[in-house]
Amino acid sequence: MKVALIGLSGYAGKVLYQLLGGHSRVNQVNIYDHNVDEVTTVADTYKGMIGNRDRVYPYDYSEIMNKNDAAFFATPAGVTSKLAQPFIHEGFPVIDLSGDYRLTDPQTYEDWYHKPAAVSGLDEAEYGIADFNHLASTTNYVANPGCYATATLTGLKPVFNSDMFSLDSVIVDAKSGTSGACKRLTESSHFTNVNENLSVYKPNQHQHIPEIMQQLVEWNHEAKPIQFTTSLLPISRGIMATMYVKVKPDVGISEIDELFEAELADAPFTRFTGTELPDIKEVVGTNFCDVGIAYNETNQTLMIVSVIDNLIKGASGQAVQNFNQMFGFAEDEGLKLAQVTV
Amino acid sequence: MKVALIGLSGYAGKVLYQLLGGHSRVNQVNIYDHNVDEVTTVADTYKGMIGNRDRVYPYDYSEIMNKNDAAFFATPAGVTSKLAQPFIHEGFPVIDLSGDYRLTDPQTYEDWYHKPAAVSGLDEAEYGIADFNHLASTTNYVANPGCYATATLTGLKPVFNSDMFSLDSVIVDAKSGTSGACKRLTESSHFTNVNENLSVYKPNQHQHIPEIMQQLVEWNHEAKPIQFTTSLLPISRGIMATMYVKVKPDVGISEIDELFEAELADAPFTRFTGTELPDIKEVVGTNFCDVGIAYNETNQTLMIVSVIDNLIKGASGQAVQNFNQMFGFAEDEGLKLAQVTV
Amino acid sequence: MKVALIGLSGYAGKVLYQLLGGHSRVNQVNIYDHNVDEVTTVADTYKGMIGNRDRVYPYDYSEIMNKNDAAFFATPAGVTSKLAQPFIHEGFPVIDLSGDYRLTDPQTYEDWYHKPAAVSGLDEAEYGIADFNHLASTTNYVANPGCYATATLTGLKPVFNSDMFSLDSVIVDAKSGTSGACKRLTESSHFTNVNENLSVYKPNQHQHIPEIMQQLVEWNHEAKPIQFTTSLLPISRGIMATMYVKVKPDVGISEIDELFEAELADAPFTRFTGTELPDIKEVVGTNFCDVGIAYNETNQTLMIVSVIDNLIKGASGQAVQNFNQMFGFAEDEGLKLAQVTV
Amino acid sequence: MKVALIGLSGYAGKVLYQLLGGHSRVNQVNIYDHNVDEVTTVADTYKGMIGNRDRVYPYDYSEIMNKNDAAFFATPAGVTSKLAQPFIHEGFPVIDLSGDYRLTDPQTYEDWYHKPAAVSGLDEAEYGIADFNHLASTTNYVANPGCYATATLTGLKPVFNSDMFSLDSVIVDAKSGTSGACKRLTESSHFTNVNENLSVYKPNQHQHIPEIMQQLVEWNHEAKPIQFTTSLLPISRGIMATMYVKVKPDVGISEIDELFEAELADAPFTRFTGTELPDIKEVVGTNFCDVGIAYNETNQTLMIVSVIDNLIKGASGQAVQNFNQMFGFAEDEGLKLAQVTV
Repeated sequence: MKVALIGLSGYAGKVLYQLLGGHSRVNQVNIYDHNVDEVTTVADTYKGMIGNRDRVYPYDYSEIMNKNDAAFFATPAGVTSKLAQPFIHEGFPVIDLSGDYRLTDPQTYEDWYHKPAAVSGLDEAEYGIADFNHLASTTNYVANPGCYATATLTGLKPVFNSDMFSLDSVIVDAKSGTSGACKRLTESSHFTNVNENLSVYKPNQHQHIPEIMQQLVEWNHEAKPIQFTTSLLPISRGIMATMYVKVKPDVGISEIDELFEAELADAPFTRFTGTELPDIKEVVGTNFCDVGIAYNETNQTLMIVSVIDNLIKGASGQAVQNFNQMFGFAEDEGLKLAQVTV
Repeated sequence: MKVALIGLSGYAGKVLYQLLGGHSRVNQVNIYDHNVDEVTTVADTYKGMIGNRDRVYPYDYSEIMNKNDAAFFATPAGVTSKLAQPFIHEGFPVIDLSGDYRLTDPQTYEDWYHKPAAVSGLDEAEYGIADFNHLASTTNYVANPGCYATATLTGLKPVFNSDMFSLDSVIVDAKSGTSGACKRLTESSHFTNVNENLSVYKPNQHQHIPEIMQQLVEWNHEAKPIQFTTSLLPISRGIMATMYVKVKPDVGISEIDELFEAELADAPFTRFTGTELPDIKEVVGTNFCDVGIAYNETNQTLMIVSVIDNLIKGASGQAVQNFNQMFGFAEDEGLKLAQVTV
Repeated sequence: MKVALIGLSGYAGKVLYQLLGGHSRVNQVNIYDHNVDEVTTVADTYKGMIGNRDRVYPYDYSEIMNKNDAAFFATPAGVTSKLAQPFIHEGFPVIDLSGDYRLTDPQTYEDWYHKPAAVSGLDEAEYGIADFNHLASTTNYVANPGCYATATLTGLKPVFNSDMFSLDSVIVDAKSGTSGACKRLTESSHFTNVNENLSVYKPNQHQHIPEIMQQLVEWNHEAKPIQFTTSLLPISRGIMATMYVKVKPDVGISEIDELFEAELADAPFTRFTGTELPDIKEVVGTNFCDVGIAYNETNQTLMIVSVIDNLIKGASGQAVQNFNQMFGFAEDEGLKLAQVTV
Repeated sequence: MKVALIGLSGYAGKVLYQLLGGHSRVNQVNIYDHNVDEVTTVADTYKGMIGNRDRVYPYDYSEIMNKNDAAFFATPAGVTSKLAQPFIHEGFPVIDLSGDYRLTDPQTYEDWYHKPAAVSGLDEAEYGIADFNHLASTTNYVANPGCYATATLTGLKPVFNSDMFSLDSVIVDAKSGTSGACKRLTESSHFTNVNENLSVYKPNQHQHIPEIMQQLVEWNHEAKPIQFTTSLLPISRGIMATMYVKVKPDVGISEIDELFEAELADAPFTRFTGTELPDIKEVVGTNFCDVGIAYNETNQTLMIVSVIDNLIKGASGQAVQNFNQMFGFAEDEGLKLAQVTV
């Protein structure tokens, strides 16, 4: 297959480029950039990609559709919704890493993204939380979930598929490294401000909240608005979502443990670690989401810890997983990553 | 005044030594170490204290009481309870940075510390959460609070002194840098394991939980067991406690804001930052605890963010503050620290 | 005394503000900012300076001279040379932290700074490498050295005051944390680029090279152009200059050791650590420069390791030291800093 | 092929295990550990290797030779020399990542490693600096170079293969992350000591010095003892060797540039970046060594900057490269790593 990668310069685009290069069913990756007017190379975009002569072409939707079998959009929110229109119109297979088609309600999009919503196609897009919503081969447009949403939803799936918990008591205290934000230069990404620090940002205002709620409600109509907090860690990579929920009376740890075991058993890239709580380092460099739990009897509170690599499971790896589902490839094709970390 | 510092080699001892050196009412700091048999120097203990010829003497309680007007114990839990007995017996003024006399119930101590409790003196000791429990001049023994306890209690004080909140819904997600643990060499303090990582440790088992509960119950007899989680940040210094509590119906943000304003107004080293949430960096190098809040109307949840320097407000700075109270010195004597950070 | 601090918003200005606040001979610090049009406060400038109502006034040179006894310029290169003209004209005491008056030759300034040199006053300014050039009380204008220059010159002073070394063989491999650069947002200060990285920058082009050479030539007319390399460390604070020089035949380590001991003995804030090589952490938070040496007989090479806190000894601390010299105060007034680090 | 991996628990063993898992010519990796008495699993060794049931067998040399076609030793110096004896005796193919067979002279080994040298086999071992010493298919025992040696030799190869430089003037200022040292818990690997610090260690005593000199002398009999310094960076991964050498009169930058271009052109995993100096981040996660240069005309000094991932090119990646050479596989088999970093 030939695939188009639109948008190389962001973190997700760079990682996606690397992952697609190791995908045995992809013969050719053609790169496009809506910000360039003439052909450049990968080496021009990335200092470290020395000698990489792969071309980066100016964006041209008809050429993209003519030369490729599928397209990945790694372009920003607000940009993607405009670029993707002809693809949606033609029913061309798209995996979209932006947030533009995740929310079915345009007003909700505008409230949280402070941008105009996509003018069409919202209903056609499928929300691709890949470990749980296996895409049909008829899917043409998949909205790849946000990084925080992926970690949170994976940990909460068992909770919202049972009646053991008080669904109005869910608290998510999530933390991310700096690559979770975009590469833009801001005070909050300056080394001296991030290093040796921890800071809460966008309290109650993070744009991943509505996609989490939308999915939770789909899983359980009694879902109530969760508390969701995001903090910036002094690390480059990784997310931990630490979640709390009240357990109903007469529910014991063994039932909870069985519930998690059962609910997560079929999720291909989720590993339930039981009461061994996972840390961020164990998943960085992989497409895994590791989930562990700790139950506190004294206050009937369950803590769920969920960790991912925000750029792999939280973005580009999940995009490849969705691509595999759309085209009927093995779920882990291109994702058997040697985690060359220590 | 002459003061004894018992235990220099730990983080708290080192910082306390520095703070006492800048205290205008302290003429002499005599250092003792229960692990040395003969006189050494500060320079022998700390590579960076080049040329510092201040003596470190072997521990000898009668000499300590003869030559000093007060004693600071910066010795570990389990050690302090043994060393401090003669001081308690004599009614000699002690500021104890260990956890040995914080809990009034010896069984609780043994359950959480997995060590024998102090054989006597537990009733005589005052728990010195300095911004709230101003010590009387008759106090002879002050148990200086734990670092996590200090950040948590400061943020929760307003909550437990009002009837606006559901006290059975309190969740504390606390994070600390590595100097919060002791200097012992462990897998979990190895650079390669801490760096680029975040990990939850001691879930529901941290030994600061009982002292927090003991104080909360004292503030409000209806206090229920809180959820308390500790995570290790890849930084050397600082604690953030992110706390959540359900707000009762019909309580609005303005009442909550007024409550916090009022409850924290007289706390000399607490700064209420309103809805500007504090970060760790702004208090590192100071004795301040900064507290901010964010209210989420959609789920009636109040988030409280409390930050401290774990070694100053969370240990040695608060010890000096308690010392000031015991001897009637100005509250901020020795604590007007130029925060030489950027 | 009343002193003016011109420029608060940079790293050096912030640290200088803190240091002057603890200087017993300074009753009042009046802050001015050439970028503000109306009076603001310190709290407006720095998020962490909560409740600090100290005023920041618009820049007005006549008012500054009327209301103060001395002025510190913590304004950028290129700006200071313009603002300082009336002060030079009046012979008003100035401590200038910028690079604008360090070089006596205007052409050299323009070659390295790529800006127009100061139109006058270059001859009046004294280069204030405080541990070695003790200022006379008649000095009106002191050019405070650059951070790299301070670490390098302190380590090389003994070398250039002896005939034991081949002066054409000097190599300086210097490394700095991010606060050594200004607060401007650049790719090279983005957390994701600095973290887990080391990079050489401005090879052979750093603007501190000419001031180092100017001082070396003053110390020894046979000085030859040194090799000087700067690398960016993933830390916030501190500089290490690792230096190499060939030792002449028949010179032994004991003579070298004696030379360093003797040459650095009178430098008030320099600590010669012998063959115990200093690390960065031992000086961060202090005004000290620690210098150690290691001699390699197999190739007759002496390694000299010099470390400073770039914002204290390398900027604001040295500025206070120069101020103390100008006004005849004790050398360490305002600089007896408790290094509250571990 | 079936290969034995002896020693999984160290950093190099873990990375090697991951790399061999992605090597298309390796069907089976059998793991052995000389410290275990009974069969365990990879998951038992590494917390993050959740669910990995690959077996770890007790060490048994005859079984290893019977069941495998080659053996990788990722065991410590001093241990390997003992374990490897039967393999050497049998002429069984071994790739040895320890330092035990790198030095041909046993006395030199004992002087630098402070351990007894191998009793036999030193002459049979080939030093596998893979980009330059292509192994013959008759090689049975390859001593994989040290991490510092790899970065240094790659950068110095052109220097020692020309007559443009003063070979007695070579200075190497090398810096490494913490995974360059072993996993042992020491003061110098404690997070609080490494973080926000830089320290020189083992001045003139690093055990990689003799293997560097041995290879340099082989390349050029006029090689003289180099100056070699090692510093510990507050990062987990990566080495930068910054090197300096005096250029002879009448040699210009264009000749030097051509020399480097020519000398490094055939090195399969070396990328010459010209005057664009490489940083550490660009090679982490890859088997590349990037080399850049900067010439300073004012003092006729050439700076060479060489960077590697210490665990891939500096250990396990180079081991795979040597394995590929021994068995005639493509040089980059198993080493076409998607550098999933940003």
